Amino acid sequence: MRLRILAIIASVICVSMTPFKKTKIVFFGDSITQQGAGKGGYIDLIQEKINAKGIQNDWEVVGAGIGGNKVYDLYLRMDSDVLTKNPDIVVIYIGVNDVWHKVSSGTGTDPDKFEKFYNAIIKKLQQRNISVILCTPAVIGEKTDFTNQQDGDLNKYAAIIRSIARQNNLFLVDLRQKFLDYNKQYNSENKEQGILTTDRVHLNEKGNEFVAAEMWKAIQSIK
Amino acid sequence: MRLRILAIIASVICVSMTPFKKTKIVFFGDSITQQGAGKGGYIDLIQEKINAKGIQNDWEVVGAGIGGNKVYDLYLRMDSDVLTKNPDIVVIYIGVNDVWHKVSSGTGTDPDKFEKFYNAIIKKLQQRNISVILCTPAVIGEKTDFTNQQDGDLNKYAAIIRSIARQNNLFLVDLRQKFLDYNKQYNSENKEQGILTTDRVHLNEKGNEFVAAEMWKAIQSIK
Amino acid sequence: MRLRILAIIASVICVSMTPFKKTKIVFFGDSITQQGAGKGGYIDLIQEKINAKGIQNDWEVVGAGIGGNKVYDLYLRMDSDVLTKNPDIVVIYIGVNDVWHKVSSGTGTDPDKFEKFYNAIIKKLQQRNISVILCTPAVIGEKTDFTNQQDGDLNKYAAIIRSIARQNNLFLVDLRQKFLDYNKQYNSENKEQGILTTDRVHLNEKGNEFVAAEMWKAIQSIK
Amino acid sequence: MRLRILAIIASVICVSMTPFKKTKIVFFGDSITQQGAGKGGYIDLIQEKINAKGIQNDWEVVGAGIGGNKVYDLYLRMDSDVLTKNPDIVVIYIGVNDVWHKVSSGTGTDPDKFEKFYNAIIKKLQQRNISVILCTPAVIGEKTDFTNQQDGDLNKYAAIIRSIARQNNLFLVDLRQKFLDYNKQYNSENKEQGILTTDRVHLNEKGNEFVAAEMWKAIQSIK
Repeated sequence: MRLRILAIIASVICVSMTPFKKTKIVFFGDSITQQGAGKGGYIDLIQEKINAKGIQNDWEVVGAGIGGNKVYDLYLRMDSDVLTKNPDIVVIYIGVNDVWHKVSSGTGTDPDKFEKFYNAIIKKLQQRNISVILCTPAVIGEKTDFTNQQDGDLNKYAAIIRSIARQNNLFLVDLRQKFLDYNKQYNSENKEQGILTTDRVHLNEKGNEFVAAEMWKAIQSIK
Repeated sequence: MRLRILAIIASVICVSMTPFKKTKIVFFGDSITQQGAGKGGYIDLIQEKINAKGIQNDWEVVGAGIGGNKVYDLYLRMDSDVLTKNPDIVVIYIGVNDVWHKVSSGTGTDPDKFEKFYNAIIKKLQQRNISVILCTPAVIGEKTDFTNQQDGDLNKYAAIIRSIARQNNLFLVDLRQKFLDYNKQYNSENKEQGILTTDRVHLNEKGNEFVAAEMWKAIQSIK
Repeated sequence: MRLRILAIIASVICVSMTPFKKTKIVFFGDSITQQGAGKGGYIDLIQEKINAKGIQNDWEVVGAGIGGNKVYDLYLRMDSDVLTKNPDIVVIYIGVNDVWHKVSSGTGTDPDKFEKFYNAIIKKLQQRNISVILCTPAVIGEKTDFTNQQDGDLNKYAAIIRSIARQNNLFLVDLRQKFLDYNKQYNSENKEQGILTTDRVHLNEKGNEFVAAEMWKAIQSIK
Repeated sequence: MRLRILAIIASVICVSMTPFKKTKIVFFGDSITQQGAGKGGYIDLIQEKINAKGIQNDWEVVGAGIGGNKVYDLYLRMDSDVLTKNPDIVVIYIGVNDVWHKVSSGTGTDPDKFEKFYNAIIKKLQQRNISVILCTPAVIGEKTDFTNQQDGDLNKYAAIIRSIARQNNLFLVDLRQKFLDYNKQYNSENKEQGILTTDRVHLNEKGNEFVAAEMWKAIQSIK
């Protein structure tokens, strides 16, 4: 009898002493994500949500964005920058530079190779049993009359990512669609920037809030 | 008395002998128009319409298309290739290469300069009291889900032409809009070519018929 | 006898009262020439040379450079910006943007069209009996080991201008060759800028002096 | 005594029966190497050299070229296409598309990333104790007056590879320099193709012979 009680007490102690394993999320991307880790950035705002709910012991969020990155840059550095961190969830947010750099420096990514590298990244993550969330690239220009120079191409790469998500049954944060919907509602003057971005691409305050909210919804849905 | 009768007879003869001045239309453009002047091309089909109606004495249609032309090429050669022909109407059908060559050879046309040269051509024609019909560039790819690589840019240049037409109160054949409407109806498989084009850009049989019909409507409406 | 003397006196008076017609030179080009008309720019320095020699009554120098201009922009604006000024000499200094914009915005100029517009400008000037001086575009990057990204293309366009000069027996200021020679001597560290340019393209103080000296030699040689 | 003799005999038999391990060379590259493995291609010609010398038991040559490949494509497929073959030597022959695609499709490779992926490939090979031979990309256009459009950029990427070779003390087949030297001697008409290439890039018969000879020299020198 005494033994049983002791055993129960001991097990209670054990459980309560077991360090909670936080769920670690790595946000893997380009300059948008690099800025997202800064003060007021979308990752910082997700941390604030976590703090406000008092669930800091459940979650750890980590930024892994580097400016100018394209899909193959992520593939090259995923061992050192993602896998070594042992994440539970990786959010892949890439594609703007793969399209943009075609016209700005002649160094974009062919669509077939974009798909190939994207799939290679997912495969490596899944081999480690890491959950994967995909995002479509949001905008290069916020005009709503479909006259942003690279709208067609950006739609194409977003379509590739949507298709990859469907084929692999992965959660998708369709930022391209969500930004378009938002702009249709709030960008009645057809401006090319200033609604959710500062410069047609990078997020302003509103944009960071918007992305943080969408990302947080996705993260909770897959946990 | 005899003199008066003779005078009347003479004037009747004169009138009846006055050669009807045909209305001369020059189609001014790029390879699409160059092919349009060939057998089965859209200009050839307009000629057939004229013949079928037996109004060959009213109309003369002339092709002035050269492959690879952009707006500034039209400006450079308009004296020799258009003005010397003394046309009554000039149909300007340009813009595909101004957009396309940005990605195929790095030699497209900046939008502000596209507008400037386009206006310079119109001004020169109007100084000669020549009627002007404008056309928007139709397609670079016929996909209907807005993923043709240059859809955004082509929309932008089409918007520039629409704006020029409005400002100058000129007749516009909005081929971009009409091709899109047609493809939405008849391209349910979202093919990138083969509906109205052979190769995403140049007109197939159906495309030539379609353009001929639209052009003919425009021509009749301004006469 | 008295009459003859009077006639001689009169003619002497006439000649001395005839206002000297200054030789007017228009420098026709892009941003390099636009900056050249500013304080310390190459056109300003040519004016200083003229002042120092006290020959202000013989020469008038006028800048007609606009940033971003390519060869076809010169053709479009030559009536309003050059011919209305009734110049005696026009110095054409164009070509950098025709090459550069291929990689920076996809809106460079095809070589065959570059040649065509260049010849059209010369023809219009010669029809007015205006003397023409040609210049090759100097540099996009000052490295001397032939690794500036667009060296090959810039060499090609410079070769086109040299060929036009030969064919038309026109004076050529071969800035491309002269800049290369200068850099081989003074750019031993193989820097990409800072020798004759501030930013790989636009002239620094030394560059403006260098161009002013070469231009002035050319101008004197054709007068 | 009998035992010792038997042991000696046995060991002699063993040694003589040990299969010679052939030195396996994988040629790792793009379409030039893909074609090189075909009849009359440079890899085929190296095999012929080996056969002629009767040293088929010493060498095994394997082609691993895929059309359109850039440096990051090699990195992505090196596990499956190279490492699984357990080569002793890998010849890396890449770089033309990294430069060429900048102007043909806007999908070239930035120089800093070219270097990064190149080094990553070498590192992976050296970790397996595989010998590495580097090659500079030969030509995009064979003109000898330095007016091939991408000469400057190709020189830059060749310089990057030379620098990597020096830093890692690796054998370099400097095809860029060797092709230039050959063309200076045999391309007196300044043709852009037809000397060592069929189309400015891919090797003709003479080109394949030339590359085979240079590669063979390199291979023998490092064995």
